[in-house]
Amino acid sequence: MSVLNLIGVGPGDPELLTLKATRLIAAAAVVAYPHKPGEASLAFDIAKSHVSPRAVRLPVDIPMSVEPGPAQAVYDAIAETLAAHVTAGRSVAWLCEGDPLFYGSAIYLLDRLAGRIPIGIVPGVTSLTAAAAAAARPLATRSQVLKVLPAPLPDETLEAELASGAAAIVKLGRHFDRIRALLTRLGRAEAAVIVEHATQSRERVTPLLAFAATKRPYFSVLLVPAPDPAP
Amino acid sequence: MSVLNLIGVGPGDPELLTLKATRLIAAAAVVAYPHKPGEASLAFDIAKSHVSPRAVRLPVDIPMSVEPGPAQAVYDAIAETLAAHVTAGRSVAWLCEGDPLFYGSAIYLLDRLAGRIPIGIVPGVTSLTAAAAAAARPLATRSQVLKVLPAPLPDETLEAELASGAAAIVKLGRHFDRIRALLTRLGRAEAAVIVEHATQSRERVTPLLAFAATKRPYFSVLLVPAPDPAP
Repeated sequence: MSVLNLIGVGPGDPELLTLKATRLIAAAAVVAYPHKPGEASLAFDIAKSHVSPRAVRLPVDIPMSVEPGPAQAVYDAIAETLAAHVTAGRSVAWLCEGDPLFYGSAIYLLDRLAGRIPIGIVPGVTSLTAAAAAAARPLATRSQVLKVLPAPLPDETLEAELASGAAAIVKLGRHFDRIRALLTRLGRAEAAVIVEHATQSRERVTPLLAFAATKRPYFSVLLVPAPDPAP
Repeated sequence: MSVLNLIGVGPGDPELLTLKATRLIAAAAVVAYPHKPGEASLAFDIAKSHVSPRAVRLPVDIPMSVEPGPAQAVYDAIAETLAAHVTAGRSVAWLCEGDPLFYGSAIYLLDRLAGRIPIGIVPGVTSLTAAAAAAARPLATRSQVLKVLPAPLPDETLEAELASGAAAIVKLGRHFDRIRALLTRLGRAEAAVIVEHATQSRERVTPLLAFAATKRPYFSVLLVPAPDPAP
């Protein structure tokens, strides 16, 4: 039976693919993945040594827009294309950086296709645990709360959430300077570290306070330990 | 050079081992793992087909005590044993269910051995993303906050944290009835699902409200979607 497999390919090191991911990627007649024209596709690069030379490759340009409209139209179209392949008897692998259901593009495909065609989901290693491994720091331990905080959230939301628990701040991009200022104001910058390109050859771990003021980190996670307990 | 590798073996399905985990497990002269006498070791069972027949097997009984004292003494002792193997030229694999730094036992070994011997950390697929895959539900999407909440926390802490964001409640065990009552009182039980034994043959996904009142879930994660936005 043909199936659409939403496959987490992990954070970057091709050796962090799971055995299941490699098996299903190798068996896929169609391999689809996000791809910006003129750039490399991280998801495809991670998986490429397992892709069959006979497989159809289907790069998909998903607009990274603040407005959800344009990206949603692309997901509508790609969902129909993938459904047509599966209905015609061809198994499809949709490659996702990290894990498919952890802030992943696969969520939008699942929304559109669940119940219409058979769908498999293969969890993957996330950038979160990869960042913790790179920094050799626990993400969370014992009965600590762990929060994953997307950087685009407003300062007041982030400040409220940072009042308790350990945090990992994701989707930093153009929000980095604002996040650094916020953590500095809250007295939480000193213990924070930036992990860039976790598990890749360019991996770099930098204390937040040592990060160059003129630079922005890419493909990065900011790890913020839990606040000290009140004295 | 000999090394202690803290290796995430994933949530249960042996096919969710990473290629890196299988390589380092196969190369280890000593394979150590948590093991309760008279019970199976999940971590070892996941990895066993990759363990060399020549490897020394080192099961470790870690007391699951509310008091940290007894477990800490065991970690002191096992840390010395592992360090002695590495110093004598034998590479060691410490097998961790899920990921080593996500509420894992490896954190206590890292605390004791960082800087003393070479240590490698191999991230793994967590029970969190495995549960989301089993339930075919996003853990978090767009700019949602995601919170990992250990069930032993007091009700008032959990209630405050549940006021915003999507949540995954872990370490349910004997706290299950209290957590169900709390979610019911907060009007959040209806959308919650329990995932037991994610990715294993016994995997089961049950809406919280359909879970038998007399039973408790094991090896489980409770997924609680974000509250509806205020009208």
